[in-house]
Amino acid sequence: MKKIVIIGGGFGGMNLAKNLAGTKGTDVILVDKNNYNYFPPLIYQVASSFIEPSSISYPFRKMFQGKDNVRFYQGSFISIDTKTNEVHTSEGKLSYDYLVFAQGTQPNYFGLSAISEKALPLKNINDALKIRNTILNNMEQACKASDATERKKLMTFVIAGGGPTGVELSGMLSEMNRNIRKKDYPELANDPMHIYLVDAAQTLLGTMSKKSQQETLASLTKLGVKIKLCVAVKDFKDDTVYLSNGEQIVAKTLIWVSGVIANEVKGLPQSAVLKNRRITVNEFNRVTGTDNVFAIGDICFQNTDKAFPNGHPQVAQVAIQQGTLLAKNFKNIVNGKSPKPFRYNDKGSMAIISKYKAVAELPIGFFKGFIAWWLWLVVHILPIAGFKNKIKLVFSWLWNFISNDPTLRLIINPQKHQVLKNMPEVKSIDLEN
Amino acid sequence: MKKIVIIGGGFGGMNLAKNLAGTKGTDVILVDKNNYNYFPPLIYQVASSFIEPSSISYPFRKMFQGKDNVRFYQGSFISIDTKTNEVHTSEGKLSYDYLVFAQGTQPNYFGLSAISEKALPLKNINDALKIRNTILNNMEQACKASDATERKKLMTFVIAGGGPTGVELSGMLSEMNRNIRKKDYPELANDPMHIYLVDAAQTLLGTMSKKSQQETLASLTKLGVKIKLCVAVKDFKDDTVYLSNGEQIVAKTLIWVSGVIANEVKGLPQSAVLKNRRITVNEFNRVTGTDNVFAIGDICFQNTDKAFPNGHPQVAQVAIQQGTLLAKNFKNIVNGKSPKPFRYNDKGSMAIISKYKAVAELPIGFFKGFIAWWLWLVVHILPIAGFKNKIKLVFSWLWNFISNDPTLRLIINPQKHQVLKNMPEVKSIDLEN
Repeated sequence: MKKIVIIGGGFGGMNLAKNLAGTKGTDVILVDKNNYNYFPPLIYQVASSFIEPSSISYPFRKMFQGKDNVRFYQGSFISIDTKTNEVHTSEGKLSYDYLVFAQGTQPNYFGLSAISEKALPLKNINDALKIRNTILNNMEQACKASDATERKKLMTFVIAGGGPTGVELSGMLSEMNRNIRKKDYPELANDPMHIYLVDAAQTLLGTMSKKSQQETLASLTKLGVKIKLCVAVKDFKDDTVYLSNGEQIVAKTLIWVSGVIANEVKGLPQSAVLKNRRITVNEFNRVTGTDNVFAIGDICFQNTDKAFPNGHPQVAQVAIQQGTLLAKNFKNIVNGKSPKPFRYNDKGSMAIISKYKAVAELPIGFFKGFIAWWLWLVVHILPIAGFKNKIKLVFSWLWNFISNDPTLRLIINPQKHQVLKNMPEVKSIDLEN
Repeated sequence: MKKIVIIGGGFGGMNLAKNLAGTKGTDVILVDKNNYNYFPPLIYQVASSFIEPSSISYPFRKMFQGKDNVRFYQGSFISIDTKTNEVHTSEGKLSYDYLVFAQGTQPNYFGLSAISEKALPLKNINDALKIRNTILNNMEQACKASDATERKKLMTFVIAGGGPTGVELSGMLSEMNRNIRKKDYPELANDPMHIYLVDAAQTLLGTMSKKSQQETLASLTKLGVKIKLCVAVKDFKDDTVYLSNGEQIVAKTLIWVSGVIANEVKGLPQSAVLKNRRITVNEFNRVTGTDNVFAIGDICFQNTDKAFPNGHPQVAQVAIQQGTLLAKNFKNIVNGKSPKPFRYNDKGSMAIISKYKAVAELPIGFFKGFIAWWLWLVVHILPIAGFKNKIKLVFSWLWNFISNDPTLRLIINPQKHQVLKNMPEVKSIDLEN
């Protein structure tokens, strides 16, 4: 019986565990700090009050109901001891025959401590709810602010990072500014939201084609998003965002979706960890200098794939395919067969720009506008965990797109409340202090 | 133009504001600490991972879209100055021509400080999410606990208070123990949940009929709920619940749904405030010793209603009817007509016991079991704010009742996460510390 411990239940880890479910001779333990898997491509819609966290989240334990060889273990990875074949977690030690790192990345603040403290990242469900609460709180504060400068400060949102998440979020915010502001906040009828999208590169969606980049730039500009390219965010203090070109944007909110760095792994041979913390692996995703430790997805660096000599892009598809192949290879190992090397099959990329508008680059060609938007919808619903979630998503999407006005603008925050739970009539939602 | 300030957007305040919407000559400001109205009768289903907060919550601003004479003001009431006709809130001062208190009640801990600190109340959405997270965290901890005593401690839930909420929550938890524990937590196949329901009275559902009480007692006992009557919870320390009969229950979790006390109001004449903090009002809900201050719902005490010489029960129907009548009376005042005195029209009461089982006492008669359950469903869906929410509720209910296994067991907690957001792989859900 081979004990396989998987650290992280994202695209890579979840697909590995799913494909190992029911495999004789394996005892699989999936370790994650959350008790649910979630769908990162859509968290920006949670942040913009468009869908519910539960529509894109699914409990691991439900996912593996009846799969006797797969167990879930809620905990946080601390370090690995390759000599004793043990991992240390926040909850205790786990021994393994095979270990797989699949815990992905975290926001990269490039050492800018002020930004790491005050900016809002958007990597997971909790980040998304924090951003949702912040946007809604700012609007409430603005309604009460007599000073126009203060109102503008509250209603200015700077998004650092012109990748898909930054593009999609800025599009959503401008839709909110257009469709919801005047209806929900009559006090702010003459105070538009100011949405900035800042990126150090020369284009948005750097990884996509010129066509997509131009289409996106044009659409967002039309929506009123203020786009600043070839400019980096340098600092964020006293409600001011400082840019590399000397410009300053007065804003209460800076959303940081500008680059990621692999989660740190303590206990591996130095030779196996790159400067950007990515773990080097061979063609079978085995970690350099180890026999029984593997890494898949965004956290690993693999340059053995002919078509990708400089490593793969850190995208969902790579993680999914690596997880699926590693499961096959574990079965091969258990059955004494030889493993297969990883080859990435690029299925293309897409980004949603605004209501009914998207860009899609698929093997079958380039799409934009409404068709791309529908493609995006289909591509993003199919992989969502749980049939009920699929129904819920389609329902909320169609409803929201038709009504132009979702009803999820709820400022909910259990933890904060708990601290104050015995004080009557205390604001339970102020996240500023 | 008469400026009417309403403190609190629950059943009473929301109905008052809704009925004043569009009334010429009135300028209405609804003040609430949350930016949404929610439906208290169903928060126990949020606590038990059965429905989503958003299914029973509705943003005030959306509710009053296009109602030009109604504005929402997010803030917490601090005190009133009847001389200057001003209320002080956490966000600043508001002046009024008429003021209405409708901020309801808070949990009553009867001065038991240990309990007010460690027990979990269930009065609002945030409480419900806190309880949901606690239950799920306890189960996760239990899965990892090697010591059987520790497991039992984590899986023992003591509910203090045998009113509808206590009855309904204990029923739900026992359903979870029956239908979900073994499927989701194979580690706990032989560790049942222990659910205690404790009340100082001689019966459950004290305000309902003997029939309902007996039916409920029988059904819950059959479901495995351990019911302790004529016993009060005295203390909660060192993971032990101390009862008035000397008994001790070792448990990590005490849920407190045992009685409420009105939210405190500073600045009113002493003569107007009772020991239990309820505000005395006349037959028009005008506060004793004031000309232009009113109180409706759970926070007020009115004994001018012939049929209720000792005041009305603190239930939704009273608040709704008082809010509706007060709106009419404000219109009368504005139009120089004389106000109408309040008479409560009791529409009966009901409680859900378990899946497909409820008790209902309606003017048309007594119902139990499946019929009562359907009645309960209809009665609780109709008043939910928002058509979309109604659809969502029916969908989740039918889905969950059919599947026996909702998919909302997600431990989500933005605030906690934010504190730790820059530490890789840190558990973002541990609510214990």
